[in-house]
Amino acid sequence: MTHPARHPDALGDHVADLCARARPAARIVANLTSEQRRDALCAAADALAAARADIQAANAKDLAQARTDGLAAPMVERLRLDGDRLAGVISDLRAVAVLPDPVGEVLEERVIAQGVKAQKLATPIGVVAVIFESRPNVTVDAAALCLRSGNACILRGGKEAVHSNRALAVAFRAGLENAGFPADAVQLVQDQDRALIPRLLSRDDAIDLVVPRGGEALIRAVVECSRVPVVKHDKGVCSVYVHEQADPLMAMEIIVNAKCQRPGVCNAIENVVIDRAIAPTFLPLLAKTLTSKGVEIRGDAETCRLIPEAVAATEADWSAEYLALIVAVKVVPDLTEAIAFTNHYGSHHSDAIISDDQAAANRYLKEVDSACVYHNASTRFTDGGQFGFGAEVGISTNRLHARGPMGIRELCTYKWVLRGTGQIR
Amino acid sequence: MTHPARHPDALGDHVADLCARARPAARIVANLTSEQRRDALCAAADALAAARADIQAANAKDLAQARTDGLAAPMVERLRLDGDRLAGVISDLRAVAVLPDPVGEVLEERVIAQGVKAQKLATPIGVVAVIFESRPNVTVDAAALCLRSGNACILRGGKEAVHSNRALAVAFRAGLENAGFPADAVQLVQDQDRALIPRLLSRDDAIDLVVPRGGEALIRAVVECSRVPVVKHDKGVCSVYVHEQADPLMAMEIIVNAKCQRPGVCNAIENVVIDRAIAPTFLPLLAKTLTSKGVEIRGDAETCRLIPEAVAATEADWSAEYLALIVAVKVVPDLTEAIAFTNHYGSHHSDAIISDDQAAANRYLKEVDSACVYHNASTRFTDGGQFGFGAEVGISTNRLHARGPMGIRELCTYKWVLRGTGQIR
Repeated sequence: MTHPARHPDALGDHVADLCARARPAARIVANLTSEQRRDALCAAADALAAARADIQAANAKDLAQARTDGLAAPMVERLRLDGDRLAGVISDLRAVAVLPDPVGEVLEERVIAQGVKAQKLATPIGVVAVIFESRPNVTVDAAALCLRSGNACILRGGKEAVHSNRALAVAFRAGLENAGFPADAVQLVQDQDRALIPRLLSRDDAIDLVVPRGGEALIRAVVECSRVPVVKHDKGVCSVYVHEQADPLMAMEIIVNAKCQRPGVCNAIENVVIDRAIAPTFLPLLAKTLTSKGVEIRGDAETCRLIPEAVAATEADWSAEYLALIVAVKVVPDLTEAIAFTNHYGSHHSDAIISDDQAAANRYLKEVDSACVYHNASTRFTDGGQFGFGAEVGISTNRLHARGPMGIRELCTYKWVLRGTGQIR
Repeated sequence: MTHPARHPDALGDHVADLCARARPAARIVANLTSEQRRDALCAAADALAAARADIQAANAKDLAQARTDGLAAPMVERLRLDGDRLAGVISDLRAVAVLPDPVGEVLEERVIAQGVKAQKLATPIGVVAVIFESRPNVTVDAAALCLRSGNACILRGGKEAVHSNRALAVAFRAGLENAGFPADAVQLVQDQDRALIPRLLSRDDAIDLVVPRGGEALIRAVVECSRVPVVKHDKGVCSVYVHEQADPLMAMEIIVNAKCQRPGVCNAIENVVIDRAIAPTFLPLLAKTLTSKGVEIRGDAETCRLIPEAVAATEADWSAEYLALIVAVKVVPDLTEAIAFTNHYGSHHSDAIISDDQAAANRYLKEVDSACVYHNASTRFTDGGQFGFGAEVGISTNRLHARGPMGIRELCTYKWVLRGTGQIR
């Protein structure tokens, strides 16, 4: 089978068109009032509700294709957008519509030279590209978060959800347009050719930020080709460190929660680090508890000597993101080594110390170089919802711009507004 | 003449060595106290003062080479590091040493789910690369700013200042080492091969930020090859807009200041935008004043009709960064067009409206999408010193991370520190 003949640079034309439409739309949405942006999102929600049948028919096509292609069952499940899920997508959209507006927030005020009054104000970033995989709800979710924060977006979903994404975007844009807002504030990339991504991400004149949401391969591909700044949502190799002054029961509860409550997420732990002084008493208790919950333990030599349940860990285990009921256990002589281990093998996402010693905890909190560092609490709190952000774009593993949970405030940048009375230098 | 035989991948080895040394040094300086980092910088200042003769001898070599190579006089002048200038470099270093410490500043506090207490704290970025040209003082300046904010740095200067940069770095590192601090917190790239830059900037695992300081070609080269996030200090095409409700005398003073006080800097203006309603009265006055100060006026058709001093501007004039006594003048029908013109042709650096109409000013301040937007003040205030930042890395034209004047606070990122009492989800 061959493709129909294409314009020699159809991809280039598509990229040029997306970019040309995005900036004017971004300027309009940036200057809408908070109420207008709320109304735009409500109009989109109404349009999605009205287009329910079309969206589900499109989703049925994707599901049929997925079965024909022999996609694994969990992948097919992620694609599914049944009545309940679609209702959930729409109600999430309405929730984002009424979030407090981050635009215009006064981040800082100072009087500068000669009495000029300066305000640092939160402003929209501009044009945000979101490159994502599988779950079609991201189409609506990303569009809503970008619009609520005054940005235009260019969305590029995976080919497995192509019909669903298109139906969702068509309805969303129709909702905007009917209510008098620019449909081009939300553009979906129509061409599924992978070669489009580097072309699109070379346009740092037209796109201000790219957020890749998906597996490691997608994120790497985006980082490698992009001239546009990237905010990554990369893997989480998180840990709990049981200090010698830890309350053993608290340590146990936190480890079980951080490992078992939802092992497939990035803020679940992969490593437990234990002080040598308490390893002989704590480890057997931990092994019994974790084993009863179906957790496989991979330990260093000392761990394996202390608990028969452990199998020997390899070097690769210390930086593995299992996303499964497996935990790697490392015994360390002291706090210094615990910090060094965590900084070396972890992914600088979320790490916790369990200790009743405030000085030890403070040193850990200072020296562990992660987006979120906990004392006596579970790493599972690293989440926009738990942080009270209302909705989240993801968990940023960037060091710059946004670090940790990323909400609509992190979809803003800032500008300095300066008011004078004729001052010159 | 041929180069001596080189190890087949000497460049790769050099990059690997720089990167391997930087991270451990960064961890050490990040965890020093504010007083220790101040002492480290004072020790470096003492060492530079002691090495004065070596540094000036090295600088003499660069100056001789520059003359042999036939470098233009202003370039040679920028290279010069005579006794006064070196004393200035050292006193600037001592001033940075005593700047208030940005590390550890509480940027935000919130109680999140289940009463977990969260603090958003300023932390060092980690390893910062600075790629710069000509002026050797940047070696000391960049090292000081990075260290004051708890970062390690990798510096790469231009080949014209190679001896000066090396002598400065040797002395700076000796100062650190003698006082018990890690010399590798400040590394100077030894190999001047341009091919090293893309190799170095592919190491996003080892370098957290790159700051290019220099001309447009350097900045473009860095943006194009870097996987490391870049904070650019790009060109400034700034403007003053004279609204129909402007105080003409204030408008005149601000335009003269912004154009003439120091035309070669990025916050000087290149464009004047004038409302049609006041153009017939204001333009002749402006033309007379600017012409008397040696400023060439390039105008649109309407400007040329109104003032004989103007020559016709071309399309390229509206986005040109003259860095000279030239100004492009555009007449617009109203505020809407003034904003559209500024957003389209400007470089989103610094723009000002002169007006007694508060509503017009507010709309301009909101809708002009620039790092610094002024009402009734000169764009020349866009400067770390004027903002009270104590010292500046530069003026960022990025939209993300840092926008506008960049001081040592902008050489920090943040982390979330969370304190609980055993909370789990």
